[in-house]
Amino acid sequence: MEPTYEEYKAAVEAALFHVTLLGNTEEIVTDASLSAPEEGTVPQPLRSAMRYSLTLPGKRLRPVLLLAGYHLLQADWLTVMPFAIALEMIHTYSLIHDDLPALDNDDLRRGKPTNHITFGENIAILAGDGLYSLAFETMLAASLTSKHPQHAIAAMEEIARRAGVRGMIAGQTLDVKLEGETPSASLVNYIHRHKTADLLTAPMVAGLTLAGASEAQKASGARYGQALGKAFQIVDDLLDLQGDVALLGKQTGMDVQRGKMTWPAVFGEENARLEAKHLIEEAVDAMLDFGEKAEFLRQLAQGTLTRVN
Amino acid sequence: MEPTYEEYKAAVEAALFHVTLLGNTEEIVTDASLSAPEEGTVPQPLRSAMRYSLTLPGKRLRPVLLLAGYHLLQADWLTVMPFAIALEMIHTYSLIHDDLPALDNDDLRRGKPTNHITFGENIAILAGDGLYSLAFETMLAASLTSKHPQHAIAAMEEIARRAGVRGMIAGQTLDVKLEGETPSASLVNYIHRHKTADLLTAPMVAGLTLAGASEAQKASGARYGQALGKAFQIVDDLLDLQGDVALLGKQTGMDVQRGKMTWPAVFGEENARLEAKHLIEEAVDAMLDFGEKAEFLRQLAQGTLTRVN
Repeated sequence: MEPTYEEYKAAVEAALFHVTLLGNTEEIVTDASLSAPEEGTVPQPLRSAMRYSLTLPGKRLRPVLLLAGYHLLQADWLTVMPFAIALEMIHTYSLIHDDLPALDNDDLRRGKPTNHITFGENIAILAGDGLYSLAFETMLAASLTSKHPQHAIAAMEEIARRAGVRGMIAGQTLDVKLEGETPSASLVNYIHRHKTADLLTAPMVAGLTLAGASEAQKASGARYGQALGKAFQIVDDLLDLQGDVALLGKQTGMDVQRGKMTWPAVFGEENARLEAKHLIEEAVDAMLDFGEKAEFLRQLAQGTLTRVN
Repeated sequence: MEPTYEEYKAAVEAALFHVTLLGNTEEIVTDASLSAPEEGTVPQPLRSAMRYSLTLPGKRLRPVLLLAGYHLLQADWLTVMPFAIALEMIHTYSLIHDDLPALDNDDLRRGKPTNHITFGENIAILAGDGLYSLAFETMLAASLTSKHPQHAIAAMEEIARRAGVRGMIAGQTLDVKLEGETPSASLVNYIHRHKTADLLTAPMVAGLTLAGASEAQKASGARYGQALGKAFQIVDDLLDLQGDVALLGKQTGMDVQRGKMTWPAVFGEENARLEAKHLIEEAVDAMLDFGEKAEFLRQLAQGTLTRVN
């Protein structure tokens, strides 16, 4: 039996909340100790800042996608948990840096004060760097004893490339630099594909790669991730417009205020809803070759739409 | 024949200046284009900002250490160039983030305006993230076809750990948070070891690992890197005190002004010079087992001292 979304998520959070290097306590420490930290540990307040953002409530969508992508071909999904939580670390680092005053200047994230509000801008920058670093450290440490080192390398390469300067960081760059410019379909598409869809595609392809998938299977996984990611971003843009702070856990109405390039801004709300629906059909279609094994991922995609009316 | 320092450095710079994704032009672009970037390329101004800091004049010490560490055991050092330039990317990312207004707030680096002065704080944050990301992307892409994937994984794990939250970022955290506090020997030692020495140790151990070194050989490489790194930082602190802007290419006298924890601040200048000398002897001693092959690294260590009178 494949786990349910809640079961995957619970397993991810059990791993995330017990990352050995980040400790077990929710106590918020904002100062450094005046005695030298123990070697091999993460010093305060870095540890507290990293753990703070990593353990805020979240959907854990990226790690779940990696586990479910792996599960399309292999049953022992717990063995790839280090790669799954690495995706959440990368996602969290990108949120911390994105929220900084020099970027989106957000005070609220996942219903709580953002990292730089709580720990200061200097520590927030280092906590973001630290989570990105810990993502690779975690995957590489798990790969040291891998029975398929080439699969591990290929999975990490996929993640690094999609998170990187042709991927997520490329999307962030245009998202930030094109604020206030006249939106166009091609630019909105570029930003959505990279800012959001690349980090949903990476776990699908990486999960399949770790499971020993063929090139054709990885291509199907990528198609699913891209379509789901774009749909997901359009739904997010619609929610921002509709403005339910409680649901989103962050300030809403900000896209319009900042002049962000969003799908609703280019094509209007109604068209955005239709486009999201079309993209979800595309994601479902991409899973065709995996047959019944893909039921979880099909339902996950369809569930995305129910977030907006 | 082993290459000279200048030959290693020239080869590193040839590779660094021709990183395909960053293009070939020195032109400084600070705005994004209003048409969507080509897929698979790095969009402006991110590309320009990354290339700007990566190609500023530098010693290229970390990549040279990786190549020379590899050369202790294997002759074909050009084959590990992707790992060498990754170290320079990591070093450069750390400088960009360290110079930000929220951290050291430096305007001058390697004799030029810092990244955020030239490209703005938002792009400087993303350019730092981008270089860190590209470091792993570069190493992982090179590892896809590695004949020794386990060596590649172990080398990358060493680099990620030493650059990470128990390594360089740990050192940065205390360096930033303990400004103005009373310096102590144990804290200065901790900060030097991690802020500086870890990123000189990583290339030594990674180079040896890629060459198939034994655990004992890697331990000798780590000893060399730690001693060299601490000596290097003490010399840097002394140069900051002596205040030659032209030599250092950055503002000087800043450590005292900021209340930074430095060796001269704890023990005085004369003791700092003696300690640096002692550390260089330690580094030279660590290379004993490699015999004549280590002549390059012994001379490199001894040259560190000649930077200060």
